[in-house]
Amino acid sequence: MSIKVIVAGFKGRMGATAVDMIKEDKDLVLAALLDPFAKEKEIDGVPVFTDKRELSQFSADVWVDFTTPKVAYENTHFALENGFRPVVGTTGFTKEEISELIDLSASKKIGGLIAPNFAIGAILLMEFAAKASKYFPDLEIIELHHDKKKDAPSGTAVKTAELIKEVRSYKEQGAKDEEETLPGARGAEFDGFRIHSVRLPGLVAHQEVIFGAQGEGLTLRHDSYNRVSFMSGVNLGIKKVVKQEQLVYGLEHLL
Amino acid sequence: MSIKVIVAGFKGRMGATAVDMIKEDKDLVLAALLDPFAKEKEIDGVPVFTDKRELSQFSADVWVDFTTPKVAYENTHFALENGFRPVVGTTGFTKEEISELIDLSASKKIGGLIAPNFAIGAILLMEFAAKASKYFPDLEIIELHHDKKKDAPSGTAVKTAELIKEVRSYKEQGAKDEEETLPGARGAEFDGFRIHSVRLPGLVAHQEVIFGAQGEGLTLRHDSYNRVSFMSGVNLGIKKVVKQEQLVYGLEHLL
Amino acid sequence: MSIKVIVAGFKGRMGATAVDMIKEDKDLVLAALLDPFAKEKEIDGVPVFTDKRELSQFSADVWVDFTTPKVAYENTHFALENGFRPVVGTTGFTKEEISELIDLSASKKIGGLIAPNFAIGAILLMEFAAKASKYFPDLEIIELHHDKKKDAPSGTAVKTAELIKEVRSYKEQGAKDEEETLPGARGAEFDGFRIHSVRLPGLVAHQEVIFGAQGEGLTLRHDSYNRVSFMSGVNLGIKKVVKQEQLVYGLEHLL
Amino acid sequence: MSIKVIVAGFKGRMGATAVDMIKEDKDLVLAALLDPFAKEKEIDGVPVFTDKRELSQFSADVWVDFTTPKVAYENTHFALENGFRPVVGTTGFTKEEISELIDLSASKKIGGLIAPNFAIGAILLMEFAAKASKYFPDLEIIELHHDKKKDAPSGTAVKTAELIKEVRSYKEQGAKDEEETLPGARGAEFDGFRIHSVRLPGLVAHQEVIFGAQGEGLTLRHDSYNRVSFMSGVNLGIKKVVKQEQLVYGLEHLL
Repeated sequence: MSIKVIVAGFKGRMGATAVDMIKEDKDLVLAALLDPFAKEKEIDGVPVFTDKRELSQFSADVWVDFTTPKVAYENTHFALENGFRPVVGTTGFTKEEISELIDLSASKKIGGLIAPNFAIGAILLMEFAAKASKYFPDLEIIELHHDKKKDAPSGTAVKTAELIKEVRSYKEQGAKDEEETLPGARGAEFDGFRIHSVRLPGLVAHQEVIFGAQGEGLTLRHDSYNRVSFMSGVNLGIKKVVKQEQLVYGLEHLL
Repeated sequence: MSIKVIVAGFKGRMGATAVDMIKEDKDLVLAALLDPFAKEKEIDGVPVFTDKRELSQFSADVWVDFTTPKVAYENTHFALENGFRPVVGTTGFTKEEISELIDLSASKKIGGLIAPNFAIGAILLMEFAAKASKYFPDLEIIELHHDKKKDAPSGTAVKTAELIKEVRSYKEQGAKDEEETLPGARGAEFDGFRIHSVRLPGLVAHQEVIFGAQGEGLTLRHDSYNRVSFMSGVNLGIKKVVKQEQLVYGLEHLL
Repeated sequence: MSIKVIVAGFKGRMGATAVDMIKEDKDLVLAALLDPFAKEKEIDGVPVFTDKRELSQFSADVWVDFTTPKVAYENTHFALENGFRPVVGTTGFTKEEISELIDLSASKKIGGLIAPNFAIGAILLMEFAAKASKYFPDLEIIELHHDKKKDAPSGTAVKTAELIKEVRSYKEQGAKDEEETLPGARGAEFDGFRIHSVRLPGLVAHQEVIFGAQGEGLTLRHDSYNRVSFMSGVNLGIKKVVKQEQLVYGLEHLL
Repeated sequence: MSIKVIVAGFKGRMGATAVDMIKEDKDLVLAALLDPFAKEKEIDGVPVFTDKRELSQFSADVWVDFTTPKVAYENTHFALENGFRPVVGTTGFTKEEISELIDLSASKKIGGLIAPNFAIGAILLMEFAAKASKYFPDLEIIELHHDKKKDAPSGTAVKTAELIKEVRSYKEQGAKDEEETLPGARGAEFDGFRIHSVRLPGLVAHQEVIFGAQGEGLTLRHDSYNRVSFMSGVNLGIKKVVKQEQLVYGLEHLL
């Protein structure tokens, strides 16, 4: 089984990283490259296009898209119309666009994936944390990032906290008469639990969820070092969508 | 909703810890105590029995059993016959006994639980580790215990490794030409991955499963400090079995 | 070499734990026990006293004191006068008392130790953290305690922060335009760095100091599970004071 | 105070990284660049040389050397003769060469540094681990590296173990009747303690030394992500050697 893949937006950083990943996987074949900024006609024997319409009669299984919010919707639509399963990492889709693309894919009976986050590890961490919070309602989140990051807590920490909130029974944690002798020591409050943000040079993007109960503890940690980490999610997406009959939003639906 | 609970084997360490846990939970009522070694007739208003037959007409919802392998099967049978849902932490059941007790419970349409391990955290860790290994086949297990422990690796580490083996695609990890300049440095080999056993005074029972992939890492850790930690599993078992219509073997089936 | 030790306050928790420790060390001999609440005349062949004056002609090398703030000063004075090197874990000495006791010990040329904290691990952590902060001025402290603790941050964390402040070049850490979308996320500010306090059931007393620099990180962590951990410090104190010619305040001076 | 620095070997990876570091530090001035492979005469106003003899009348304070083992000795000699304090990261010096260079520096009363390892964090970790092992003789080392690494344990782990061995009282750790049900689980034996080597994709170079004692634990961890981490050591070396009156071998002597 070898899956033929088109990469749209291959001149960008994510697109280029996806090209490398596809070349290294012997189950995948790089079938075509698309980018309006491309000057080449062919790279290592792979045809290069600058306009998607040139691909309408092309034969391929999957359309990987790391383009821009502006063209991603149109590209995904085009891919579905032409029988290419879309695997889309571009963000900025509206709810209406997603709904419409899901309906289109269902009518064509072909799979697809639009994912705001391709880091399998981060997605597993969130899923595990939410499940554990059902049994261990006492928890705290510590997220650690490089010291150039402006916002605290991180978007991932907030997303994790929200997923936990959906399933955890509300509990106001900590001692009733707790007192901060230095303000902020106990971190940010969210639904009765706490979130702490560490910022240090040398760090990239890390998150720990710590659960405590009488006589035991459970700690879940994800470390993200660079964008290569997204590629296992893209790879998984490519291999899963060829077996699906409908587009999904969010990589978690394929795990 | 308040659940009436009988504790069999309340003179033992686990039984006594269960009694404490039940008393502290306002949703549970300690209905009766059973132990052949009991001298009391009543403790804090709760009737005490030395022979289970005295309980045949008793009214209660759940039968918690921390007795001995010798009597546990008979006790569980008795509980089911008399309409008490058994929650059993005693080990030593044969496969045939478990099958028979499941059938009996199904015919009576009442729930029950026989669990070799009540540590929810340890069970969640195994479940999460197995799931993560599907996406991250590169992993190592580090288990850490006090330095009086004789066997290495720990039973929990081996159980975790077996659960991982069931779902992970086999992979021989490490560099092909890897060399140990000090023998044993790379740990024990299991299905292509490695297990390391740390033994130090001060430690109790801890386990880490570390996953690595291009540009990211995922670490799952469970710390167990004392037997109190089993009680959240017993508590969960009590509350779940009253809603079930059949006995199950293994707490994981109620998570 | 075997050191003869008197334990004052042996009926208290710390004193009793010290007695156990001394009995288990073959280099130490339990010579006498003192406690006003003692009823026994002798325990396992060791003479028991209720009044320190009965010990004035006694032969021993070290006086371990876990009594009360009220009598500890007088006891330490008595020990020095009678040639017993004091190893004192009782708190509440004034600066003047400490000065006077140091002078007295120097005039007698015998060693001694008054220590507010006997946890060697905690003291080493502080010392290492302070030294590392000279080279890695970017750091954060995370301290983790059980959820009955009222104050945050912990006294140990504040002490650690103060020791760091003495040697670290001041630096305002984090991004200049950093913003908390949930207040408190970035923890408590202390001398330009941050302290975070985690409170969870199951935890006892733990502290991490995390240093970050371009391309590297250094993490120092101490875990304290119970009061037994103080005994290695008491043991070390006993063995060190017999070689000193003056009393010191603080176990760090003997490390 | 601004220190004028010559960088020899600026065309190599380490030399180029050193140039970047010097430019970013306002206390340092890049005075000259030397490399036989250089084509430029000047870079951003800094004169470029291909032969060290052209620098004999040059005015500068420090000579940073990241050249090759073949020329490093001669370069260091040249630097000392001409009043430039050498800070040398090139390896391959013989003991005799080092002795001679130290003598030469002492006769000239100028400082200098030859360092096989510039990672301050790694050096601090070793120093702290050795000190802690005096008080906590029970320890294990876990080192974690990428899965392309051939040798186990790592050179740093062996170096750390040797430094610990020098100061720790020998102790055969673990239970006397310990048994490996899977061979290698307990890791490599070194002086009675154990070393474990983890190899996973995504990891770079990490080391943990875990100490255990009754009721407490101490964990020291160093994470190294890339060669930028060496530059804080080079920077420190530059600023220290101008205050010294003799060359030293090993960055630890300047910490």
